[in-house]
Amino acid sequence: MTTSGTNEFPDLQQRMAALIGEGDVPTLEAVLEELHPSDIADVVESLSDELRLALVRALPADLASETLAEMEEGEARAELLTALAPAESAELLHELQDDDAADLVGELAPEAQDRILAELPTDEAGDIRELLQYDEDTAGGIMTTALVSVLGHVTAGEAIEAVRVKGREVEDFYTVFVVDENTKLLGTVPLDDLILSDTGHRISDLVQPTVASVFPDSDQELVGHMIARYNLASIPVVSVDGILLGRVTFDDVIDVIEAETTEDLLLFSGVSEAEELRGSSLEAVRTRLPWLLLNTMTASLAACVVWWFRSEIAEATLLAVVMPVVAGLGGNAGQQALAVTVRRLATSAGPLEARGRVVGKEILVGLFNGGAIGVLVAGAAAMLAVAMGADPRLGVVVLLAMWGNIVMAGFAGSFIPTFLDRMGQDPAVASTVFLTALTDLTGFLLLLGLATVIL
Amino acid sequence: MTTSGTNEFPDLQQRMAALIGEGDVPTLEAVLEELHPSDIADVVESLSDELRLALVRALPADLASETLAEMEEGEARAELLTALAPAESAELLHELQDDDAADLVGELAPEAQDRILAELPTDEAGDIRELLQYDEDTAGGIMTTALVSVLGHVTAGEAIEAVRVKGREVEDFYTVFVVDENTKLLGTVPLDDLILSDTGHRISDLVQPTVASVFPDSDQELVGHMIARYNLASIPVVSVDGILLGRVTFDDVIDVIEAETTEDLLLFSGVSEAEELRGSSLEAVRTRLPWLLLNTMTASLAACVVWWFRSEIAEATLLAVVMPVVAGLGGNAGQQALAVTVRRLATSAGPLEARGRVVGKEILVGLFNGGAIGVLVAGAAAMLAVAMGADPRLGVVVLLAMWGNIVMAGFAGSFIPTFLDRMGQDPAVASTVFLTALTDLTGFLLLLGLATVIL
Repeated sequence: MTTSGTNEFPDLQQRMAALIGEGDVPTLEAVLEELHPSDIADVVESLSDELRLALVRALPADLASETLAEMEEGEARAELLTALAPAESAELLHELQDDDAADLVGELAPEAQDRILAELPTDEAGDIRELLQYDEDTAGGIMTTALVSVLGHVTAGEAIEAVRVKGREVEDFYTVFVVDENTKLLGTVPLDDLILSDTGHRISDLVQPTVASVFPDSDQELVGHMIARYNLASIPVVSVDGILLGRVTFDDVIDVIEAETTEDLLLFSGVSEAEELRGSSLEAVRTRLPWLLLNTMTASLAACVVWWFRSEIAEATLLAVVMPVVAGLGGNAGQQALAVTVRRLATSAGPLEARGRVVGKEILVGLFNGGAIGVLVAGAAAMLAVAMGADPRLGVVVLLAMWGNIVMAGFAGSFIPTFLDRMGQDPAVASTVFLTALTDLTGFLLLLGLATVIL
Repeated sequence: MTTSGTNEFPDLQQRMAALIGEGDVPTLEAVLEELHPSDIADVVESLSDELRLALVRALPADLASETLAEMEEGEARAELLTALAPAESAELLHELQDDDAADLVGELAPEAQDRILAELPTDEAGDIRELLQYDEDTAGGIMTTALVSVLGHVTAGEAIEAVRVKGREVEDFYTVFVVDENTKLLGTVPLDDLILSDTGHRISDLVQPTVASVFPDSDQELVGHMIARYNLASIPVVSVDGILLGRVTFDDVIDVIEAETTEDLLLFSGVSEAEELRGSSLEAVRTRLPWLLLNTMTASLAACVVWWFRSEIAEATLLAVVMPVVAGLGGNAGQQALAVTVRRLATSAGPLEARGRVVGKEILVGLFNGGAIGVLVAGAAAMLAVAMGADPRLGVVVLLAMWGNIVMAGFAGSFIPTFLDRMGQDPAVASTVFLTALTDLTGFLLLLGLATVIL
């Protein structure tokens, strides 16, 4: 019984390396066959390139293929598959369901793809080629064509027989799809309902209308929403004519949700969504530097404002002292509003929720929080000014600048992602890079502008 | 066939209100019975309090209960349940699986809980009370005790018979659990394997060892990781003695993953995890103001640094001009490192991944990006200084300050969450509030300190 199962891995890794070194394949197999492919994948990923290849070759084909499927997407996996002979690779792909096989093949160069697919039976290669046509972020890109379907007019008993025949080649099916003679989807029968029903019942009496279906070009994020919203173990993928093309199961969707979460947090933080979490430093530089360059431009705008008011600052250096407080709190208040709004949109039930209300709420929150923080900082600034023999009206300037900036931050933090969402864009693109640029700019403009007028 | 299903909702909402007003219950029922409880829940949430109550009363008990289960957690749902008579509420709870019932009851005040549970059959009330004991963030808090289990010595045919008897009271079972006479878990048989097997086969030949199990007090995040890692439709919850207590299914876990994603992004952005996304403005003030107060203190530290060097600024106001650029870019580079590290930890395979390598990579990225951006901004600053007749060595000061600050940002952005994770804390608590405070502080110290030394 395992509750975490990962504690013994560092030891395991050494033991594997030793067994591979000794060429003790029987012991190696015995140890690995106790493990889940996900765990073997971790061991493989922690080994050197040669040991990886040796380990994958030592595994039985079914275990080796599942291990490859569970490895992280990326270069390491593609290199491993390329290092095998095309016939060896084909043998592994043959063991996998077509969606996993297509994911693996999709990472290879076109020539390498052709070499491996040529070694597969024509129908399998055809299925994989078909799946490779779909964009990897779509329902088509994550669906499998392996599914169990029955005709509407059969009985439950006949359906169970059909399931017993067809099901052997299909992994993890939870739902039986009911179709007409043209494979047009009529509805679904959950596997547990099928087992519970009397064998004489007609499938047409058991069938449930399709709660939700998606098209092959539907965004994978929509697939995730549908599965989460309707608690589905699998969702059918249909053509515009309603022809059943494939299915996406909950486990693919959990992977999608995790990937989208990563993408959103990275975008939100000004990292290109293309950065691999475990990629090289060079790749990280390539994906992040453009954002930092953009940020240099936006920060220069804030610097221009300060430049414009440089003589005021030379006269009253206290202004430079409160600058980071005004800008910093505006930035943080804005990020709070941004985070709440982005998640609110991501988990939104749909158009029922009035978007205007979101922005209104954030302005109200900004009015209150901005007032409270403004009074606090203004009091401190006024006392400091008195102590230094400067103009105590600095307090009024600070109060108005902070209040205004935090209200603006609440407005921008909620309006920008709401607007992007309305335009069909990912609201997470409203990254904090733009927001903090805006709050810096407004904060300095308000602080220094008001200082010129009031002091 | 529905691909989104939400477009017709605003109309639907008006039609519902009209039908409720006219008291036309038959038409109302006919319309609603076409909808999924998740969709009805959205309609209910968009109605006024009285209409909500009328609508829930108009629905058949099974649909009303599922609708309540699909509503958002929170006050609105608790009020609706309290507005019903205890006997009415009990009738609805009776229709639900125990985990959903416990979630609903758990939102009520203790006296209201007792009133409703008193109306339920003793065994059902007992199951719900048992589940209520567990913390809502644990496996016990999201598990159901409703499951299908068989003894190891029966045949597949006998098991299918047992499933047909017991399964009628259990919703969405995908896995049959195999236990001994003391209900100690021996392993699992996926439902599809059971159907595919010959009826004469012994279950003990079909049983798969338990890939993963959790304890009732395991964190729900761990449950999510296990289900995602091993692609499980449901995971058993066992006592320390291995006694089978319940199961958690993938759909609960998808909800958990979404909730944890929200929590992480909010914490990351300096919003207390307790803030409800659709809560009132007052609640938002209460959860966010403490973070802003904390931020006021951290920003004051940066202000102190500026105060310390105020005479240098009065002499060379160009320093005040470049201040926001040095601080802003440090903040953004740090947030990039923080986001990548937080997600890397959240999706980590376990202790196999060397933590030191993460920090090393971020320092390397900082060295490169900091150098590139530093040279760019330093060049501009030097030209500006020359144009204004000021000391062009400002360029050197800016270069060193930006470079140092961005490297520090990479170190802090990766080290702090890694350290928190090592200490068993949620790495997302390493919010940008602390990080930007640090990059402001270091940025100003470096810029103004170096200016004092060099200029």
